[in-house]
Amino acid sequence: MNAIIPAMKVSEIGEFGLIDLLAKMVNRARGKQESAAHRLIIGIGDDTAAWHGDTSIQLATVDSLIQDTHFTLDTASWEEVGWKSLAVNLSDIAAMGGLPEYALVSLALPYDTEVVNVTDLYQGMIELARQFDVAIIGGNVSSAPQLAVHVTVLGTAGNQERQILTRSSARPGDSVAVTGCLGAAAAGLEMLNKNLAFELEVASALRKAFLKPCPRIAEGQLLVEHGVRAAIDISDGLLADLGHVCQASQVSARIQVDRVPIAPEVKANFGARAFELALAGGEDYELLFTGNSEIIDSVRKAASCPITVIGEILAGKAGEVNLVDSNGEPVSLPSAGWDHFTKR
Amino acid sequence: MNAIIPAMKVSEIGEFGLIDLLAKMVNRARGKQESAAHRLIIGIGDDTAAWHGDTSIQLATVDSLIQDTHFTLDTASWEEVGWKSLAVNLSDIAAMGGLPEYALVSLALPYDTEVVNVTDLYQGMIELARQFDVAIIGGNVSSAPQLAVHVTVLGTAGNQERQILTRSSARPGDSVAVTGCLGAAAAGLEMLNKNLAFELEVASALRKAFLKPCPRIAEGQLLVEHGVRAAIDISDGLLADLGHVCQASQVSARIQVDRVPIAPEVKANFGARAFELALAGGEDYELLFTGNSEIIDSVRKAASCPITVIGEILAGKAGEVNLVDSNGEPVSLPSAGWDHFTKR
Repeated sequence: MNAIIPAMKVSEIGEFGLIDLLAKMVNRARGKQESAAHRLIIGIGDDTAAWHGDTSIQLATVDSLIQDTHFTLDTASWEEVGWKSLAVNLSDIAAMGGLPEYALVSLALPYDTEVVNVTDLYQGMIELARQFDVAIIGGNVSSAPQLAVHVTVLGTAGNQERQILTRSSARPGDSVAVTGCLGAAAAGLEMLNKNLAFELEVASALRKAFLKPCPRIAEGQLLVEHGVRAAIDISDGLLADLGHVCQASQVSARIQVDRVPIAPEVKANFGARAFELALAGGEDYELLFTGNSEIIDSVRKAASCPITVIGEILAGKAGEVNLVDSNGEPVSLPSAGWDHFTKR
Repeated sequence: MNAIIPAMKVSEIGEFGLIDLLAKMVNRARGKQESAAHRLIIGIGDDTAAWHGDTSIQLATVDSLIQDTHFTLDTASWEEVGWKSLAVNLSDIAAMGGLPEYALVSLALPYDTEVVNVTDLYQGMIELARQFDVAIIGGNVSSAPQLAVHVTVLGTAGNQERQILTRSSARPGDSVAVTGCLGAAAAGLEMLNKNLAFELEVASALRKAFLKPCPRIAEGQLLVEHGVRAAIDISDGLLADLGHVCQASQVSARIQVDRVPIAPEVKANFGARAFELALAGGEDYELLFTGNSEIIDSVRKAASCPITVIGEILAGKAGEVNLVDSNGEPVSLPSAGWDHFTKR
């Protein structure tokens, strides 16, 4: 087994390299298994796992918020950490077109934490859970040097495989579309980290975008109803997440950058960096999806949020995402990981 | 809401005080909810959550292993951490009489971790998962200053509520019984922490008991088949876990200490402390259960591991566990939390 493991550190192989390696190990082991594994539709590698339950498809996902990796308690309240720790998981269920049902919470925290802080964290989770009729049904509390919240969410989808949205269903000729506007979460993070000053209304909108995102559950279900097959939630950033879709679907994509819907607070306050925040910032928890023009038109008419077509899926190098301006001229991002981009 | 939150730290209210407080918050919120919450049989407060699925009862549990809280990498291998992180969750499913099916893994680790360490950790999990036909179907990897493994396990039980084992079903007159032998896990921890030297065979058995416990899945199902209703897995220690059963069932219990089955390696090597390790040590992941004598006799005949009756359930102060010697004379533990105990 270990013969094929590269002698490198996690930082060198990268998050996605590591996940890919672990997924291969797990899949190889699963091949030898019986019952439960045979009902599996999707294991590691999409927004959630999915399997055939008795009468409907079951979904499960886990995600974590770790102090000083995903948030700091200098800039986020305990209640916001609680809300967001559940929201990121509900967003994964939304990206499958599912309905969330149950949540389990594994909490790590220092023993000198004030009890009221922990109840505030739960209050944030409960508030969001109530909005989406999710029941918190279990959990675990452990001592640790810093706060970490690991949340598992279970949900359901229709009873047929075409009723779940996957990363691997994008096809050449599909249009690429997004719900809502982008960039506000990354702008909110930047505002908090750099202590930037804005008008109260702007500051409040940016803070909310980063710390209390609203998962697109209704929109995910709408996509399924209208025949969309491919979707992902925008957590790593539009370009990175579209890259995941293209990789899983073995296609490429072309995005017309001036079509990307930038959040108005970001456009008004972040100048030339607004594009970068919208394209590469991440954590907006909007849905990115693909489908033919008729399907996307019908989604647009039915949705209660903006639906914007920003590009198209092409045959071509699997996983590649190209950017063009309004004249179809290429726009490039330097290789230094989406931090900046320049026009050629 | 905050008016009722005590102004104290988590260390003052304690793990179980905190869980109790959070469970109350969650239950109050759940009362206002619709569909999913109404199918719930057991929420926070038992070994797993349980709810009515379409044709069978569904189980879900989450537990974590955190570096320097639950293990150190000086004394445990990555492969052992992987095994144990899944084992403690499978044990919770066993304590409900269920069958585990799926696992999700949320990993926090330093980015300078060697990739081979992470694959070793997964190898330990996969090895155990394969034994119990559990499919690892999802996960998450995050950066953090220290290693933490949060595992969620989903399982199923029969289709009727009497087919799950709960903490709240012990009745006065029931005998109290345990599977296997106790004390070896705590002795293993002590051996590792204090660097104690034993014969190779003893050292290996103690290490395995602490780091690679084997969940009692088959035994849990056997208990259900023979009509047992109340069970818990021994993770916090025999006395503490029996206390949880008594509290949830609103009964008391009397244990005859010389009946408690002590692991032979512990009896032979830990002198007078062997009793303490078996009664209060914890992490043995044996099953503690109650039932009438006929039921327990039938379980004993059918089981492939030792089944030992160690006491009985009584009416009396809810949650109280009393110890007696072979003459029925009281034996006491000083209040300083099970660390020592003395004969009166």
